[in-house]
Amino acid sequence: MNSLTDSLKMIKEIALPSPSKIVLIVIDGLGGLPDPPTGKTELETAALPNLDRLATEGICGLTDPVAPGITPGSSVGHLALFGYDPVRYNIGRGILEAVGIDFRLQPGDIAARGNFCTLDENGLVTDRRAGRVSNEKSLELCRMLDGQLAGDVEVLVRPVREHRFVAVFRGPGLVPEVSDSDPQQLDVPPKPITALNPESAVMAGVANQFIAQAGKALAAHHPANMVLLRGFSRHPDFPSMNDIYKLKPAAIASYPMYRGLAKLVGMEVLPTGATIGQEFATLRQHYADYDFFFLHLKGTDSAGEDGDFKRKVAVLEEIDGFIPELKKLNPDVIVVAGDHSTPALLQGHSWHPVPVLLHSRWCRRDSVSQFSEPACTAGGLGRFPATRVMPLAMANALKLTKYGA
Amino acid sequence: MNSLTDSLKMIKEIALPSPSKIVLIVIDGLGGLPDPPTGKTELETAALPNLDRLATEGICGLTDPVAPGITPGSSVGHLALFGYDPVRYNIGRGILEAVGIDFRLQPGDIAARGNFCTLDENGLVTDRRAGRVSNEKSLELCRMLDGQLAGDVEVLVRPVREHRFVAVFRGPGLVPEVSDSDPQQLDVPPKPITALNPESAVMAGVANQFIAQAGKALAAHHPANMVLLRGFSRHPDFPSMNDIYKLKPAAIASYPMYRGLAKLVGMEVLPTGATIGQEFATLRQHYADYDFFFLHLKGTDSAGEDGDFKRKVAVLEEIDGFIPELKKLNPDVIVVAGDHSTPALLQGHSWHPVPVLLHSRWCRRDSVSQFSEPACTAGGLGRFPATRVMPLAMANALKLTKYGA
Repeated sequence: MNSLTDSLKMIKEIALPSPSKIVLIVIDGLGGLPDPPTGKTELETAALPNLDRLATEGICGLTDPVAPGITPGSSVGHLALFGYDPVRYNIGRGILEAVGIDFRLQPGDIAARGNFCTLDENGLVTDRRAGRVSNEKSLELCRMLDGQLAGDVEVLVRPVREHRFVAVFRGPGLVPEVSDSDPQQLDVPPKPITALNPESAVMAGVANQFIAQAGKALAAHHPANMVLLRGFSRHPDFPSMNDIYKLKPAAIASYPMYRGLAKLVGMEVLPTGATIGQEFATLRQHYADYDFFFLHLKGTDSAGEDGDFKRKVAVLEEIDGFIPELKKLNPDVIVVAGDHSTPALLQGHSWHPVPVLLHSRWCRRDSVSQFSEPACTAGGLGRFPATRVMPLAMANALKLTKYGA
Repeated sequence: MNSLTDSLKMIKEIALPSPSKIVLIVIDGLGGLPDPPTGKTELETAALPNLDRLATEGICGLTDPVAPGITPGSSVGHLALFGYDPVRYNIGRGILEAVGIDFRLQPGDIAARGNFCTLDENGLVTDRRAGRVSNEKSLELCRMLDGQLAGDVEVLVRPVREHRFVAVFRGPGLVPEVSDSDPQQLDVPPKPITALNPESAVMAGVANQFIAQAGKALAAHHPANMVLLRGFSRHPDFPSMNDIYKLKPAAIASYPMYRGLAKLVGMEVLPTGATIGQEFATLRQHYADYDFFFLHLKGTDSAGEDGDFKRKVAVLEEIDGFIPELKKLNPDVIVVAGDHSTPALLQGHSWHPVPVLLHSRWCRRDSVSQFSEPACTAGGLGRFPATRVMPLAMANALKLTKYGA
């Protein structure tokens, strides 16, 4: 098992079980950048009366998911919010996707994240998502590729959603240290997978063989006529949130990857629907049964990735509408945070620090009255590493005793 | 000896002896929380014209003694202010108490903090402090228990104050890794002391034997009819402040524990009285003889622990009255800091960051004009780990030269 960092060791030493409840709302890609015509960010543009009230009653700040200047991947941003140093506790993309679809990994399995993509007649990638093939088509293609043998290695292929799938390599002598085939840009060919150390030559060979076979099998399925693989990885063995924090934690997330992530840190994943309303309804239904809830809201990030400023504003406003319902549950601690920024202007994740809001009886209220990037800059929590969000939530829920004599 | 952390190594490398003088005022449990009727903290409620003037002329900020969300014990908060990473340089409670009463420890001695307590007829703890027995009674009881033998181990028992005492175990083969007998709650029996590793079985046996003997000896002394032991520990061997900072440091503290702590980092402890005025008078008397003074003021913490908001306000105002006298001495650097927050509302130490004020000719004055939690949030020092207080004080006293080429 991955051992505890000093910081988590300390928390484990002082954490106490208690009936108090924490709700951590993660608004994916929360932070933004100002739209030039107005000079206002998505958060500043949105009408958020309920989040603003929560900010007024609570204490605000800005988190750095990894460090200033570092743009985090999705798992990194979340691990930090759960208190796990994301540099120390790293997970490959492949494992994340596999766990997210409830794939039963076996010891030694290596998982990779796959995309169906489009190659032109010259073998250059023209669409990394093959026109976002339908779930039905993806299922058909995955079934076609599933169970192929590359040498004595079996490749298990499972659809995730649209163009995304998981490829799990099962066989002797596999280690995950290989490069990606996904070039992450257009009008270039897929990259050959290379071994990153002498032990991983077998894995690289098997992966390249699988890709070649897949290319042949998919030739007639344009636009999904090739696969791109990335994030080869092995199941990590993280200390659980229950072990560290003495919590009984539950996750509410409609996207597989976030459910998978929650499982990796030992949360129970609650069945839920795809809408914001359904996620909040799930929280309400199970509120009595757990003392920590991670509620993940994806729409803001998707809108940001699509460069859709207005949609991101609309999703924020929709989320805001559910805050009164959340407050009715009267959690001891409410945290509203983001795993990273996804400014619509950048159409992707960014390095900008992320607004955070903590609401509790003991939070030492600051003067912030708007939940936005500029307002949070002046917040009482200051700017701090996202790994401190959990200790702060635990402290405010009176779940941590004194450290040291 | 405990080796130097990288941070202290750097300071040691660049510290220069100089005639400039630093006064570090530690107001114990300084930070607070707003009183609901007024929305103002203890610091905001108190009339502090002199501290406010010092804040106006100086630069302010907020310190985290350990890290956001962590509530520090007393020694932890002080070690951080002295520049010692309190996670790395940890001290047991027993040693702290022993050093605080000038007990001459010998190599190999193991010290534990003791409480006289009250057990009912069923052996359950009904008062962890035996009604706060008088110093006189405590002395009598300690004399009774002092010098007992448990096997070939001698147990030396010395009173500290009221119900508190120190038990020092002197004999072969003792190591401190044993659990506490103090259950830290009422209506349960004292806990048997257990060995935390195979080497500490002898220590656990000796401690349990001593406790059994003490119970018999105290049977007739209700309410002080039992002892509770905790914080078994051995003398740490810290690098001294003189070695690191090239300072000649002196401590002024009326409470034994803080004097003990100061000794552990190599400060000379000056005899002083119990009042704030007497402590400031001691500073004045010895001002010519040292270049660093740690002046510890306990009343704020005691009031906070008692949940007495008004008394904490009154103690702050009393302290404020001595600031003009301090300024007359014209120290090159004045720092007013706290080892942790003790909000009256929480009746105990808390995790909230602590206001800090640095006054010097070179401090780069900010716009803060009130010494309070909200005002310091906007201070020029920002929010920073308390271990940086000493480097900042040293720099402002022009006692640190350039680092690196």
